[in-house]
Amino acid sequence: MKLLLLSNSRSVDGSYLVHAVPLIRAISAGRTRVLFVPFAGVTTSWDEYTANVQAVVEPLGLRLTGAHTVGKQEVEAAELIMVGGGNTFQLLKECRERGLLDAIRTRVRAGIPYVGWSAGAVLASPTIRTTNDMPIVDPCGFDALGLVDFQINAHYTNELPAGHQGETRNQRLAEYLVVNPQDRVVALPEGTWLDVAEGQATFDGIKAGYVFRQGADAQELRAGQSFPAV
Amino acid sequence: MKLLLLSNSRSVDGSYLVHAVPLIRAISAGRTRVLFVPFAGVTTSWDEYTANVQAVVEPLGLRLTGAHTVGKQEVEAAELIMVGGGNTFQLLKECRERGLLDAIRTRVRAGIPYVGWSAGAVLASPTIRTTNDMPIVDPCGFDALGLVDFQINAHYTNELPAGHQGETRNQRLAEYLVVNPQDRVVALPEGTWLDVAEGQATFDGIKAGYVFRQGADAQELRAGQSFPAV
Repeated sequence: MKLLLLSNSRSVDGSYLVHAVPLIRAISAGRTRVLFVPFAGVTTSWDEYTANVQAVVEPLGLRLTGAHTVGKQEVEAAELIMVGGGNTFQLLKECRERGLLDAIRTRVRAGIPYVGWSAGAVLASPTIRTTNDMPIVDPCGFDALGLVDFQINAHYTNELPAGHQGETRNQRLAEYLVVNPQDRVVALPEGTWLDVAEGQATFDGIKAGYVFRQGADAQELRAGQSFPAV
Repeated sequence: MKLLLLSNSRSVDGSYLVHAVPLIRAISAGRTRVLFVPFAGVTTSWDEYTANVQAVVEPLGLRLTGAHTVGKQEVEAAELIMVGGGNTFQLLKECRERGLLDAIRTRVRAGIPYVGWSAGAVLASPTIRTTNDMPIVDPCGFDALGLVDFQINAHYTNELPAGHQGETRNQRLAEYLVVNPQDRVVALPEGTWLDVAEGQATFDGIKAGYVFRQGADAQELRAGQSFPAV
């Protein structure tokens, strides 16, 4: 399996997916036919979303087909699968209802590379129970692709807006681990990502990441550091 | 129906439920037997949670019984129902599994007052689809008590931590309204609450609240302002 799992889509300067382009170039490696899964998009139409991402990856020679325009069997023809960010609950709901979870899992396990950012990275986890998103629709179960055996928390930060008394991210992840004590959560700050290949995940990016486990201090991940992914 | 729905438990100075005490005094009005629902507590035990709240409401002459210690039929004996904050998904899951949703709904519709803060306020909404919490457990459906006909968003703020590129709260609520265009969302900043009586909700607190509707500007709520609740 080959996975590129990015925390987020915006570069530090606000540009869209620019920091991801060299990474996508490396993982696509001459492939051209891409199945793009736009279902996390809520306030942008899936056509627009597909077109926006097509514009970014155009220089790489990639040709995106929106998953909303194809039947399940056409997933078979894709040489690369890309899953965009947005609302994780809607992404999972649409993938489940369209039978795409099994189809994508099968293809990726057969060697088709998977690129996901934000909600699209969380979808590669066993479940979406570490998403930060609002549950605007019911996905009828939280089980997801399970391409890696740890949970991903995207857009990781432990900061709160000034004066805010809601839970910090660390408190939320601690709650997650209280009820799911056997799990690992890999927290990806913005501008960071994981490359998964041959059963190993390698962390990279502009900040440190963290691995959270129940009853242990968070373990810092430095750029270039690897750990088991399956 | 009489409901007191508070955005949060901490007062501006960090003290626990202090701003809520006079409001709880008013709605309890001489009642003593309280069913306390502690299931949103994740990192605190339900016994501890019940004891902590008991200590705060002790001067009001209230006697709390934790819902984790009673059978469904004992809900009948309660003169007041209080639902604490924490994780909304766990709160809903436990209430559903224990058959408490119907039991509480029936009692509150029969005139037993309901006090909820944070997750406990969200639970009074038709669904929990406007919670800010992490979906750490699957509640097996998002339908909740439906004591009011609008959605509540607790701990409302549109601020993000500096440099953070995730969705703002307003963007999340806009997404909610795109997929649920018929709904109203009442956003309660910290230090604010709703008093619901005789089919009317009255907003109060130290900041302005907001009503969000699809395709319209957010409507500001000032202290003392009322609107239909059912």
